[in-house]
Amino acid sequence: MRHKIKASIIGATGYTGLELIRFLAAHPRVEIVHLTSRQHKDEAIGAVFPHLSHMKARITDADHKTAARDSDVVFLALPHKAAQDVVADLHGTVKLIDLSADYRLDDPASYEKYYEAHKHPGLLKEVVYGLPEIVDHEKIAAAQTVANPGCFALLAQLLLHPFKGQIKHADIFAVTGSSGAGKAPTEGTHHPVRNHNIKSYSVNTHRHIPEIVRGAGISEAQLNFVPSSGPFTRGIFAQAFITLASPSSLSFSAGEAAYAPAPFVRAMDTVALANVMGSNFADLSFKMGTDGRILAQGVIDNLVKGAAGTAVQNMNLMFGLPETEGLMALSPLYP
Amino acid sequence: MRHKIKASIIGATGYTGLELIRFLAAHPRVEIVHLTSRQHKDEAIGAVFPHLSHMKARITDADHKTAARDSDVVFLALPHKAAQDVVADLHGTVKLIDLSADYRLDDPASYEKYYEAHKHPGLLKEVVYGLPEIVDHEKIAAAQTVANPGCFALLAQLLLHPFKGQIKHADIFAVTGSSGAGKAPTEGTHHPVRNHNIKSYSVNTHRHIPEIVRGAGISEAQLNFVPSSGPFTRGIFAQAFITLASPSSLSFSAGEAAYAPAPFVRAMDTVALANVMGSNFADLSFKMGTDGRILAQGVIDNLVKGAAGTAVQNMNLMFGLPETEGLMALSPLYP
Amino acid sequence: MRHKIKASIIGATGYTGLELIRFLAAHPRVEIVHLTSRQHKDEAIGAVFPHLSHMKARITDADHKTAARDSDVVFLALPHKAAQDVVADLHGTVKLIDLSADYRLDDPASYEKYYEAHKHPGLLKEVVYGLPEIVDHEKIAAAQTVANPGCFALLAQLLLHPFKGQIKHADIFAVTGSSGAGKAPTEGTHHPVRNHNIKSYSVNTHRHIPEIVRGAGISEAQLNFVPSSGPFTRGIFAQAFITLASPSSLSFSAGEAAYAPAPFVRAMDTVALANVMGSNFADLSFKMGTDGRILAQGVIDNLVKGAAGTAVQNMNLMFGLPETEGLMALSPLYP
Amino acid sequence: MRHKIKASIIGATGYTGLELIRFLAAHPRVEIVHLTSRQHKDEAIGAVFPHLSHMKARITDADHKTAARDSDVVFLALPHKAAQDVVADLHGTVKLIDLSADYRLDDPASYEKYYEAHKHPGLLKEVVYGLPEIVDHEKIAAAQTVANPGCFALLAQLLLHPFKGQIKHADIFAVTGSSGAGKAPTEGTHHPVRNHNIKSYSVNTHRHIPEIVRGAGISEAQLNFVPSSGPFTRGIFAQAFITLASPSSLSFSAGEAAYAPAPFVRAMDTVALANVMGSNFADLSFKMGTDGRILAQGVIDNLVKGAAGTAVQNMNLMFGLPETEGLMALSPLYP
Repeated sequence: MRHKIKASIIGATGYTGLELIRFLAAHPRVEIVHLTSRQHKDEAIGAVFPHLSHMKARITDADHKTAARDSDVVFLALPHKAAQDVVADLHGTVKLIDLSADYRLDDPASYEKYYEAHKHPGLLKEVVYGLPEIVDHEKIAAAQTVANPGCFALLAQLLLHPFKGQIKHADIFAVTGSSGAGKAPTEGTHHPVRNHNIKSYSVNTHRHIPEIVRGAGISEAQLNFVPSSGPFTRGIFAQAFITLASPSSLSFSAGEAAYAPAPFVRAMDTVALANVMGSNFADLSFKMGTDGRILAQGVIDNLVKGAAGTAVQNMNLMFGLPETEGLMALSPLYP
Repeated sequence: MRHKIKASIIGATGYTGLELIRFLAAHPRVEIVHLTSRQHKDEAIGAVFPHLSHMKARITDADHKTAARDSDVVFLALPHKAAQDVVADLHGTVKLIDLSADYRLDDPASYEKYYEAHKHPGLLKEVVYGLPEIVDHEKIAAAQTVANPGCFALLAQLLLHPFKGQIKHADIFAVTGSSGAGKAPTEGTHHPVRNHNIKSYSVNTHRHIPEIVRGAGISEAQLNFVPSSGPFTRGIFAQAFITLASPSSLSFSAGEAAYAPAPFVRAMDTVALANVMGSNFADLSFKMGTDGRILAQGVIDNLVKGAAGTAVQNMNLMFGLPETEGLMALSPLYP
Repeated sequence: MRHKIKASIIGATGYTGLELIRFLAAHPRVEIVHLTSRQHKDEAIGAVFPHLSHMKARITDADHKTAARDSDVVFLALPHKAAQDVVADLHGTVKLIDLSADYRLDDPASYEKYYEAHKHPGLLKEVVYGLPEIVDHEKIAAAQTVANPGCFALLAQLLLHPFKGQIKHADIFAVTGSSGAGKAPTEGTHHPVRNHNIKSYSVNTHRHIPEIVRGAGISEAQLNFVPSSGPFTRGIFAQAFITLASPSSLSFSAGEAAYAPAPFVRAMDTVALANVMGSNFADLSFKMGTDGRILAQGVIDNLVKGAAGTAVQNMNLMFGLPETEGLMALSPLYP
Repeated sequence: MRHKIKASIIGATGYTGLELIRFLAAHPRVEIVHLTSRQHKDEAIGAVFPHLSHMKARITDADHKTAARDSDVVFLALPHKAAQDVVADLHGTVKLIDLSADYRLDDPASYEKYYEAHKHPGLLKEVVYGLPEIVDHEKIAAAQTVANPGCFALLAQLLLHPFKGQIKHADIFAVTGSSGAGKAPTEGTHHPVRNHNIKSYSVNTHRHIPEIVRGAGISEAQLNFVPSSGPFTRGIFAQAFITLASPSSLSFSAGEAAYAPAPFVRAMDTVALANVMGSNFADLSFKMGTDGRILAQGVIDNLVKGAAGTAVQNMNLMFGLPETEGLMALSPLYP
């Protein structure tokens, strides 16, 4: 039997870390080494997350350099901003996959506009953006550090990418489940408020916008992005009307064709949120609307394709494994 | 004490009939006379709907002519197509409010395109479309028969109406709760399928389209209408991007201004589905997007503002009562 | 027209205060005078609760003595413990209805055991426990201050009361919606945690136990009380197996008979949570089980029959109005 | 690499068949041969269940004898009654795991009382009841045909089994998700009815009762079983008060001890439905109540531990594999 990849997770006790544990524990080529969290150090994983009570792993406060030294790959599941220094410390010493927003953008000015001044602006261009359905696999395979896409940004780019270079304008509506807000209770995730409700927020100001426009090759002025919070736990349902520079009745078929070789993109007549739950699939559909507009719709599980699943997919590419290794066996939980 | 309005409901045991009962029973100026249903004749209302067990009313199979003879106003809560003959029989003999789709359109060709050939095409133009926020109250007040708007159609028109005459194109996304599908179980309302799910249906073919385009003064080619089913019981959350012929930075304020005197329209910074539950309110918001597009968003309770509440509002107008009579006391159930 | 009752709510911006507003605003014999809250003083009610944007009322920080001076009745919707001094200040000067737990028990030792030492133990016996289905209406009518029952405690007592004096032992399971935890987000009401979940808490230690055992005439050793949190916003579904000292096959009919004259108790073959939503009804059913045990089941809306609705019912009794005044018109919101 | 087990599913397109596909497709030692369904013959699995669109398998109408001839093990996921003849045809010719209720009872009279007269009563005693946490593994390993337990029955037995021989009486309340009712829409699974609701049904008449009492070694007169339908898709939350013949303060620890070697039973302080979603775990807790009663609580995923997961566990035992093979990798989907 071949050597297993030694993997550690820094910040293992948020929802993203949790999903990484689920996928890495089921991955036939991975062995988990360190699970770290300052808040829960020295606790059994089952004490933090009772649904994992059958696992023996413990949380430690091992520092990131120790984790890196003992590992082949380190996943950073830290809050935004907290990953800036850690990446700077570890970049080049171990394969790194950063699930925070800290290195997703390559332009320091753009980062500063949507977040704050970056502490290591020079590093931004050295980190590879890991959206395997759009970025060259060779580039990801050769990366020292990969920045994992934002959940909204990933799905929005999948909707727009087939039309790159032809887009005049795009209006995107996207509804997300409550798990997207993370593990800490907030007013917006208070059950009496969230249950049986939909409302928009951060219209045209959401932090995923610079990722989307860069990926789609458009300017901010060519996009309207309207995120909403929905009454479900997991998933994003996104729909866009895309106006092309020169619409043609055939252009919409470009959508389905674009992803033919991508194992986790499924072309559907009609997408349904429930069809991807717990899995790494992105289901997409493209239809011709009136006025030459293309209706693009898509669904993902925000914690999987929108976070941990794509991270594992990136890891597979970085280690020369089949892209699907350890991901296909966890098919959608339906109903 | 003044004379009470004698009201009957034909087809009282569907969800629309049910909401009419809730509002009419609470209306200080109404007395319910007949509640009819072939399926449940001679049953106590509480036997059909246990949540109404405290009411003494019984369901009968009184025919519509008897109901009309004994009443000042008759509400038709019948399935589509079933109301065609009943309206033809009763029109002019009693005040009629038809909640089916049978007389919402005034053009027989349009009705035939989206439904089937109408049995009484000549009557279509005699029935008044009862959307009190848009139609002249005098017209509704003088009507013999009022056609109550479709739920999606009502909200879509509220979003578009302020811009009537200036609209170049509109893209509308609308998510509806499961109660919109009525009382009979179907595959799309099967709980394991509907719970934790969103999916679109009838894209650009939904039967409410002709109502919307007529109300907004646009053609079908100027509209994309994408209805979706959402994981909640009541309510519609709709959002539209509206492209105006000559966009100006001020045009969006027209939205809020348009409904200043309408007691059931509330201008909000951000609308939220949960804020209207069980009430006759339509909450609307209008924002300026990129490329001169206007983002219009709105929420209603599909069974109230989208059906029974507007029907009672129409009744109030037809009997010279204040528009809000018997409706304001039932404020939204939150949380 | 007769004089309207002037009513104020101290602590108007929690979920209980909110429901009081909904019912008092719809009550034909009530005029709201003061709505107070330190946290939200000088805000319009619609700024705190957008679903009430149509109301003109403002929140103030009027102190309780001012509120009392201007009012015929004052409702206290304060957190537990905060009501102790306010009741002590106002008792005897105005009709008071306290929705907190502070004066529900009459025995200071019992209060101290489940809460903490009471600051005004002498007052406990002067306050009347306001559970109108069980307590003599004359007693409530004559009260200066009424303590409104706890939500679990109210429903549990309705299940047990018909068998008072004959109960050997009772095991009660009760599942509550998330609104029972109040307006502040907590870990247990975090949507990703609460949605699609049930779990128990405070088994045999819940603070409503002393109310239940006092009302049922049993000791703590004769009760098992297992509260659970359920994946819905409103409502309590409770079921009990009751072992009688001398079971007889007819004893269970005592359940239905017990509440024959109570307008808000409905005897049902099978109770369903959805049947009482938003209303003041308590639906109950009683069946004979094996081993002589009685199966008693019941449902209420925790915020209405379990709080604000019963409070208004108590107010009606205190002012000589029909018990149902202003309550019957708000029938259950179904579906 | 070793030979893979050839597995077929007769009746593959219900929710139980669906879960079998999910687990068998992920099982490292299994190869799926036939998936059969009369209703959906010649359709791709993704046409029936779009969430499986990535799979190439097709549904056929291969008859059960063909399936058996080509397979090492055949799973019957047929409606109750439909499996009677199929088991009679195949018993002894291939390893069979029947997920219907048809062979769960060994007493023809009991089967007739709760279902109808059995067509092959003589076979009942030849089929082994496959509840691996309770039944000797050797017996399951040696079985030609295994009857998979009912979902309620399995969890109820896990709660009672540790006290077998000492139970005087047990009262069980169990709440199930809507997927337990299967794929066909019914009134009870209509989303507007099921959402935000709980209600009981089949009190003391449910068909799982004879399984429970046989497994627990008690009579029907010693059990009250109250099943309820809850507002969630997957899972059963069950709680019981158990009266022992001679209660002792230590007896409850028997509960936790009983399952120490069982890999899918997790002893918890407090069980929570969400902790087992999608997995084969049964989480149990045991507490001492008043009056010597034991409070036993447990949660399972009804489609996994309550159906397909236990079936795969039985298959593992029948083929000499570790009990956990192919099951542990699919850990609970949380949140």
